[in-house]
Amino acid sequence: MKSIFAWKDKALFTPGPLTTSATVKQAMLRDMGSRDPEFIQVVREIRQELVLLAADGDEYTAVLMQGSGTFSIEAVLSSVIPPDGKLLILINGAYGERMLKIANVHHIPAMVQKFPESTYPDAKSLGRALDEDASITHVAVVHCETTTGILNPVAEYGKIIRDHKLVYIVDAMSSFGAYPIDLKAAGIDFLVSSSNKCIEGVPGFSFVVCRKDKLQATRGFARSLSLDLLAQWEGLEGDGQFRFTPPTHALLAFRQALRELEIEGGVTGRAERYQRNYELTMEGMQALGFLPYLEKDQQSHVISSFYYPDTPLFDFKEFYQRLSERGHIIYPGKLSQADCFRIGHIGRLGPADVQALLAAIQATLVDMGVELPEKVR
Amino acid sequence: MKSIFAWKDKALFTPGPLTTSATVKQAMLRDMGSRDPEFIQVVREIRQELVLLAADGDEYTAVLMQGSGTFSIEAVLSSVIPPDGKLLILINGAYGERMLKIANVHHIPAMVQKFPESTYPDAKSLGRALDEDASITHVAVVHCETTTGILNPVAEYGKIIRDHKLVYIVDAMSSFGAYPIDLKAAGIDFLVSSSNKCIEGVPGFSFVVCRKDKLQATRGFARSLSLDLLAQWEGLEGDGQFRFTPPTHALLAFRQALRELEIEGGVTGRAERYQRNYELTMEGMQALGFLPYLEKDQQSHVISSFYYPDTPLFDFKEFYQRLSERGHIIYPGKLSQADCFRIGHIGRLGPADVQALLAAIQATLVDMGVELPEKVR
Repeated sequence: MKSIFAWKDKALFTPGPLTTSATVKQAMLRDMGSRDPEFIQVVREIRQELVLLAADGDEYTAVLMQGSGTFSIEAVLSSVIPPDGKLLILINGAYGERMLKIANVHHIPAMVQKFPESTYPDAKSLGRALDEDASITHVAVVHCETTTGILNPVAEYGKIIRDHKLVYIVDAMSSFGAYPIDLKAAGIDFLVSSSNKCIEGVPGFSFVVCRKDKLQATRGFARSLSLDLLAQWEGLEGDGQFRFTPPTHALLAFRQALRELEIEGGVTGRAERYQRNYELTMEGMQALGFLPYLEKDQQSHVISSFYYPDTPLFDFKEFYQRLSERGHIIYPGKLSQADCFRIGHIGRLGPADVQALLAAIQATLVDMGVELPEKVR
Repeated sequence: MKSIFAWKDKALFTPGPLTTSATVKQAMLRDMGSRDPEFIQVVREIRQELVLLAADGDEYTAVLMQGSGTFSIEAVLSSVIPPDGKLLILINGAYGERMLKIANVHHIPAMVQKFPESTYPDAKSLGRALDEDASITHVAVVHCETTTGILNPVAEYGKIIRDHKLVYIVDAMSSFGAYPIDLKAAGIDFLVSSSNKCIEGVPGFSFVVCRKDKLQATRGFARSLSLDLLAQWEGLEGDGQFRFTPPTHALLAFRQALRELEIEGGVTGRAERYQRNYELTMEGMQALGFLPYLEKDQQSHVISSFYYPDTPLFDFKEFYQRLSERGHIIYPGKLSQADCFRIGHIGRLGPADVQALLAAIQATLVDMGVELPEKVR
């Protein structure tokens, strides 16, 4: 990399791994024995605090799993659905599709309700499907579909699912820590997120916050050794240890990240900063002539999708590279139907970083010869 | 932790996570975008260097997998054995047993040849089994059984397996980097190890070095999405990216660790230091009256098992705790038949660290009232 910014971290306007604080990274400057009581205490603290972020500590518990967020999604889907179970997946993006792939590879009977990437899965249609098919035992949905940045109304689905007495699984990968979530109120039984998202830790593990009784009822269902959710929980509850080597440094970083979340005012405080990042980005991008992909009321403050400008002068690869050389990393699109790119609003970034990004985008468009709206020229 | 050593890292005489260099940990003080060309280059370098440590770069390739070493063991076993395949596992310890558990959870037909923890799996008996059962397609064994520290003769098995034209899988978790391994000469098709072992990186991922043609012949066999070895390889070979979020910081640490391995004189240079650590430990422990579990010629320079002293004054938990307070972390035993504890010889530790450990062990025995042999009293 010949950029003059190579000596310095670039700002990551992505869905993760994110920009983290210096102190979170510095917490990794230690080697701890993974079976030593001092480390076991770190794990205990993390698990307790994760539960308390979203639920009451008696009825709910937290399981940490090595690997990326997808590993925990697969751990849940492959561990909690009985052989005679049936999964309904509400899909409006790539991460919903991924759950279907997981169900398929494990030969878990699954049906889907599929919606356009720009709309919510429809609650009424969910209700009808559950009324009509009594063989459905589990329902899964993504909270914030990072494909677009849409924030699906998980609590609304939760009411319907609870009325039907089914198990409810939510992929809250990029929303946990960015939006207050009350597991009990939303009727969520298994919620999945990851270390390198809105808690602002580094990548290395993911986690499941879930109802204890629902987890304990899954004995014998696991279809993998590494991703056996109940066995992992029993290890952590028993001697406090991971069954297999944990990413000790990523866990130390995460404990520090949880402390910094608290200093920021918890999820509410953090949500305010992300919301401000989002608003500044949206205002600035629209002023530069970019069109957002989603309707405003569907849009999360996690990540936003923008259409490519309608000109042959715009080439995304070049745009990305030029922004990278200026010290900003944005994210390509993942849409099946539209040419979009994405800008994240999460991680240890604030208004000054967003303004620097917007200035760089403006300068880059000028460099590329893309015409700007009159008012910003 | 009330120890005066709490402010400083303890020396990890364990099988991993290990003590790593300050510079390896400092390499983690960066946030990189996981889909950015700069990070993709880091991954490419790591994969190339891993292959060259054990094989020729044209016929062999490396796949990195998120999670602990067990995740890659499961990735291999669940991805490379066809539905009509049959696995023979040579077992002389807990990690061989773990492979059987993985085969069982995936309903992979598996048979075992089981040997005492203090002896090698017998090559002749392997040959007879392969002669007798033509349905066996894959053979798996552990190189250094960390259960005891025994170093199994994997090249000897390899000849027999090659003669039978079967696929050979080796768990080299704790030996890769500590012993020169020539994949081609040993006839190994799939070798598995982990980031936090003898390359002296931090935990967060594991890896498979394997024959390209054997990997490419496994299409459609994977029994998991996250642990799909061929799909993971195709992602890394295609756009150079992990399919799912990689532990970026652990990968940066690993690249630095590979550079430091080279500075130390590669695997040969590192093996010399580990051998010296082992010899010093063994001499010192025997002088203190401890009996090693294994015969000398079976023993690796990775980790050693010692019997508990034959006195009611010795309590392992107390022994461990007192050594920990003095700044040294040792490892409990994992034997099914004997009361042992373990001391590792790997990681960023040298003779001075071993001597400090031995002095602490002597002082601890005195504190516990355990009688020492006359010559060291």
